[in-house]
Amino acid sequence: MLLRGRPRTLGAAALLLLLLLGFFLFGGDPDYGRPRSQGAATFDGDPPADPRGHNRSDCIPPPPPPPKCELLQVAIVCAGHNSSRDVITLVKSLLFYRKNPLHLHLVTDAVARNILETLFHTWMVPAVQISFYNADELKPQVSWIPNKHYSGLYGLMKLVLPSALPPDLARVIVLDTDVTFASNIAELWALFAHFSDKQAIGLVENQSDWYLGNLWRNHRPWPALGRGFNTGVILLRLDRLRQAGWEHMWKLTATRELLTLPATSLADQDIFNAVIKEHPWLVQPLPCMWNVQLSDHTLAERCYSEAPDLKVIHWNSPKKLHVKNKHVESFRNLYLTFLEYDGNLLRRELFGCPCPPPPGAEQLQQALAQLEEQDACFEFRQQQLTVHRVHITFLPHKPPPPQPHDVTLVAQLSMERLQMLEALCRHWPGPMSLALYLTDTEAQQFLRFVETSAVLSARQDVAYHVVYREGSLYPINQLRNVALAQALTPYVFLSDIDFLPAYSLYDYLRASIEQLELDGRRKAALVVPAFETLHYRFSFPSSKAELLTLLDAGSLYTFRYHEWPQGHAPTDYARWREAQAPYRVQWAADYEPYVVVPRDCPRYDPRFVGFGWNKVAHIIELDAQEYELLVLPEAFTIHLPHAPSLDITRFRSNPTYRDCVRALKDEFHQDLSRHYGAAALKYLTALQQPRGPA
Amino acid sequence: MLLRGRPRTLGAAALLLLLLLGFFLFGGDPDYGRPRSQGAATFDGDPPADPRGHNRSDCIPPPPPPPKCELLQVAIVCAGHNSSRDVITLVKSLLFYRKNPLHLHLVTDAVARNILETLFHTWMVPAVQISFYNADELKPQVSWIPNKHYSGLYGLMKLVLPSALPPDLARVIVLDTDVTFASNIAELWALFAHFSDKQAIGLVENQSDWYLGNLWRNHRPWPALGRGFNTGVILLRLDRLRQAGWEHMWKLTATRELLTLPATSLADQDIFNAVIKEHPWLVQPLPCMWNVQLSDHTLAERCYSEAPDLKVIHWNSPKKLHVKNKHVESFRNLYLTFLEYDGNLLRRELFGCPCPPPPGAEQLQQALAQLEEQDACFEFRQQQLTVHRVHITFLPHKPPPPQPHDVTLVAQLSMERLQMLEALCRHWPGPMSLALYLTDTEAQQFLRFVETSAVLSARQDVAYHVVYREGSLYPINQLRNVALAQALTPYVFLSDIDFLPAYSLYDYLRASIEQLELDGRRKAALVVPAFETLHYRFSFPSSKAELLTLLDAGSLYTFRYHEWPQGHAPTDYARWREAQAPYRVQWAADYEPYVVVPRDCPRYDPRFVGFGWNKVAHIIELDAQEYELLVLPEAFTIHLPHAPSLDITRFRSNPTYRDCVRALKDEFHQDLSRHYGAAALKYLTALQQPRGPA
Repeated sequence: MLLRGRPRTLGAAALLLLLLLGFFLFGGDPDYGRPRSQGAATFDGDPPADPRGHNRSDCIPPPPPPPKCELLQVAIVCAGHNSSRDVITLVKSLLFYRKNPLHLHLVTDAVARNILETLFHTWMVPAVQISFYNADELKPQVSWIPNKHYSGLYGLMKLVLPSALPPDLARVIVLDTDVTFASNIAELWALFAHFSDKQAIGLVENQSDWYLGNLWRNHRPWPALGRGFNTGVILLRLDRLRQAGWEHMWKLTATRELLTLPATSLADQDIFNAVIKEHPWLVQPLPCMWNVQLSDHTLAERCYSEAPDLKVIHWNSPKKLHVKNKHVESFRNLYLTFLEYDGNLLRRELFGCPCPPPPGAEQLQQALAQLEEQDACFEFRQQQLTVHRVHITFLPHKPPPPQPHDVTLVAQLSMERLQMLEALCRHWPGPMSLALYLTDTEAQQFLRFVETSAVLSARQDVAYHVVYREGSLYPINQLRNVALAQALTPYVFLSDIDFLPAYSLYDYLRASIEQLELDGRRKAALVVPAFETLHYRFSFPSSKAELLTLLDAGSLYTFRYHEWPQGHAPTDYARWREAQAPYRVQWAADYEPYVVVPRDCPRYDPRFVGFGWNKVAHIIELDAQEYELLVLPEAFTIHLPHAPSLDITRFRSNPTYRDCVRALKDEFHQDLSRHYGAAALKYLTALQQPRGPA
Repeated sequence: MLLRGRPRTLGAAALLLLLLLGFFLFGGDPDYGRPRSQGAATFDGDPPADPRGHNRSDCIPPPPPPPKCELLQVAIVCAGHNSSRDVITLVKSLLFYRKNPLHLHLVTDAVARNILETLFHTWMVPAVQISFYNADELKPQVSWIPNKHYSGLYGLMKLVLPSALPPDLARVIVLDTDVTFASNIAELWALFAHFSDKQAIGLVENQSDWYLGNLWRNHRPWPALGRGFNTGVILLRLDRLRQAGWEHMWKLTATRELLTLPATSLADQDIFNAVIKEHPWLVQPLPCMWNVQLSDHTLAERCYSEAPDLKVIHWNSPKKLHVKNKHVESFRNLYLTFLEYDGNLLRRELFGCPCPPPPGAEQLQQALAQLEEQDACFEFRQQQLTVHRVHITFLPHKPPPPQPHDVTLVAQLSMERLQMLEALCRHWPGPMSLALYLTDTEAQQFLRFVETSAVLSARQDVAYHVVYREGSLYPINQLRNVALAQALTPYVFLSDIDFLPAYSLYDYLRASIEQLELDGRRKAALVVPAFETLHYRFSFPSSKAELLTLLDAGSLYTFRYHEWPQGHAPTDYARWREAQAPYRVQWAADYEPYVVVPRDCPRYDPRFVGFGWNKVAHIIELDAQEYELLVLPEAFTIHLPHAPSLDITRFRSNPTYRDCVRALKDEFHQDLSRHYGAAALKYLTALQQPRGPA
């Protein structure tokens, strides 16, 4: 109708414009979107059964992207500590470029679920929904398949997604944990529009000669269409697969192939390819740049040097970033971009998309909005409210076997105390739960630090929990609480990172707990007396007797003897010298001993950030809850010297800082009175006589 | 011709496809690419003289991007230390998304040129050319215009680009230093294709009511077409402007307006708008998302909440990131992404574009390729070859006035020693040149640290040079050389960051240099005796007498008395106690005193990375070049305690590390023999008697 007036000229003009647009869409590269020369060679020996279906996708321009606020669905299988780290990098790249709301479907084992649940809960990225699916429940469906691929059993789980994901979920993009996005996933989602009526699986051709079966003598790959397809990135029409009887289909093929082949070499990919070889109408080939495969002998260069744009890179070699490839440096830089990217910065709204805010986000916004910027303690209050992104068990960790008197050492640190870890491991052979306050970049430095340390990498009972930095004040008590919450033994030794415990302390504490019959019968905090050395080369005493000799020689002091004696005076060092049995001491103002308590002890008060009063408040809380304070006669721990932290430097030089700590203390006491009534009066009375910097 | 066969159906099909493509291009938003509702209101009172020209650009879809490897031209005016930092963030965002080779035309004052020349030279980003233009030479062309805008005179320089840039440069994108890219600049470059035959200036409409003149009573803005245009992002057809007599045109308009208006309020933007109001055919309006303006009362939300995509954000408020805007948090996160982005990761090749490598890149590649990964010292050799990105004078700095005996304190540090800076400033009132080894993120933390420190922000004579981290070993001597090269006084005091000099040292050194008549007549290194305290709270001696008392009391030691006495023994502390005049000492093995030397002294040997032998080698070099070693009787400096660095920890625990330091020492001695012949024999002989960890 519109054409009626001057069809011919309009037609010509439209065609011209089309050519122009085509030029735009293909970036001036007539091959864009098509399999490369490599692609042409693919089906040499083995032409696809439905070449029309295959070729069609090559010439059609990219379809329109999904509507601005359409929810895109993504599924990822992830198990264990290391894959969880990989998934986070993948998700960071995904979130960086996305403009649409996302729903992530995560098929995880218990370890990955624990990590990722905490992570996403604390990450609070707008417009991202997360659903978890129990991988262990899916295991029986694939565990019968012998498999040699490094991804193990979990590599096979992509096969069961049509039944594992919700029945009303029709389309999903399935990603391996080792891919990195370099573009907006909506462009990939848009390729669903290319599918013909029957096609159900979108895949990029394999960028190696593996399936051609000529890599070495007697190389017998699984059957595939020509060069085969790579399953690192899959567009799945779940609805069609269910309708086509997918489960039956792949099991039949796999069973048949396993009659002649001993095992899958490439996990799910072998089976996907075998099914596709049998039912080629299922597959919609995708443009190569949506899965640029960087394995050792990759043919990907043909793809990325011609395409105007890289879309997704895939580290599909067991060597990952150490793969040999002449351009690997450039790809690695893209990967490192997201590995080291500050995930907090992804808390960006999608303008114009009405999405429900992440849980807790609204309350947080309100609380933040109520703060007054004029308040001298604004920075403190803002820091207290900050929800830090938390990555628990950042490195592989084996929980300690359940033992009734076991003790976990709990501490927190930042980058500048990393060099304490080796010594600490030598002094404490038991389980530890450590919170590390790091940037994303520092977390990677930390990872390398552990990997290159023989001492640290030998320990599987040390759990490292990364709390990502945000704000200007060190959230010391929030960090302690993260480490404390992750301790898995019945007792915890609440220490600080710049202390080294006596070599015998771990054993001695467990024996003491048993002897004192603390389990349930007695509510006590065991005090570990604290000392300090001022020499940073120092020979650690192997016994109490040796310690006392050093003390008398002036090589050791009781902790903060010069600057802040009241912090430890109630421990009564004079009595400790002679003591043969545990003795009870009374709380006094500013007392902040290092103690062993049951895991369910009160948490630290998160209002204390930066330097000042953070432990003192916790000991008050213990005393208010009527914990006995019992000093152990053979226990000791020694503080090593270090330069003052930035926070302590700020505290000393800034009167506002001190005023704020005082204001926080006052508020703490008010809360204490509210909670414990008259019993809390003694703490307030003690406070009336200020005696030190806190 | 092609159409002849079946024009009608083909025309219809083409139109259908066009609609489909249109949907794709406009993201399903029929308003995309057009001025928003706000745009419709723009010309209410003041319709453009050439509405056809204006409207045409609204309905034409984005043109094809430039060919894959086309060189894109960008011009930026930049002056001073702070703007240089801003430009780097802008350039990082530009490089992150670009896929084309770029030529940056930087119009700079001497300060910015010095900074940016060093930066780009050491950055070595592939496919980026840089040209500098002297802003000071252009000043007379704009300095006659009275201007109230915060950008000052430099804000006006965009007006003279057609004559300042090379005459054969036809097109350029001009950017303010306060914009951030969120997309590929090639898409912006492609908009040149929208220009009609006469149009020469592409601009986004102003996103505030400023030019409507109704913001307050008696608000008299410069004349503009409706809401006017913002000049933070400009597409300039330089060829057409030159042809149209641009210089004459804008000067005429400006002169005329200045008859009735007292000064420009918005610098160049007022004049651009006045010229455009007079010659509306010059302007091609650009889609709003190419310059999303985040000033205080911005109307930008209309733009960014409808557009599918943000392209460029513009912090066009003097408050910059502290501007009040309900979505500022999200924009800030995008900005922080690039502020904190590791610039090293932008050393990414453009696959498939033949570009000449950056200067030095090929030699570097060859040298790196010759290293053997099997070599136990591979990491050391790789670190030595690393070209670190260097940002000299990261913060505002005023060079010291030339004085013949002035001394600059030279040192290097990383984040963990930042807290030393305030104390150092109190102890050394003279000029300092400090190299800081930081990540991009840490550089921002450092900036905030200085800004919030009253002591540090009061000092303009401390030059901070950021050397960006790369590799696992601390490049200590490269850092020292950067700091040394930037010292501007005739003498330098080569110190370390964990030392505090005597309060009187700066004055005393200048007096000594004068007295000893060092200028030219005598080749000497003045030794400043070094001591150490083991207490981190410590009252600093105010005189040599007080220092000796502390020494006798055991509160102070000579430096490394316990661990490495040979490092300072040749200083002869016993003699120093009594000395009243400078005395000469002889070199001995492992001597590493802190010295004052002329600025043109030998550089440190960059092969020594990490811990070990880095200063020792430098003192050998001084001795080999026959510098007299003169100990100053009243000079002293004191080392404060700190935890051992990660490098020293590695050194102690790793035998390979020690072997490599030994190998480097051997190579150093071989070079020494080659250079100094028989005279170097004594160093080798001394080496035969190994006495310590180095």
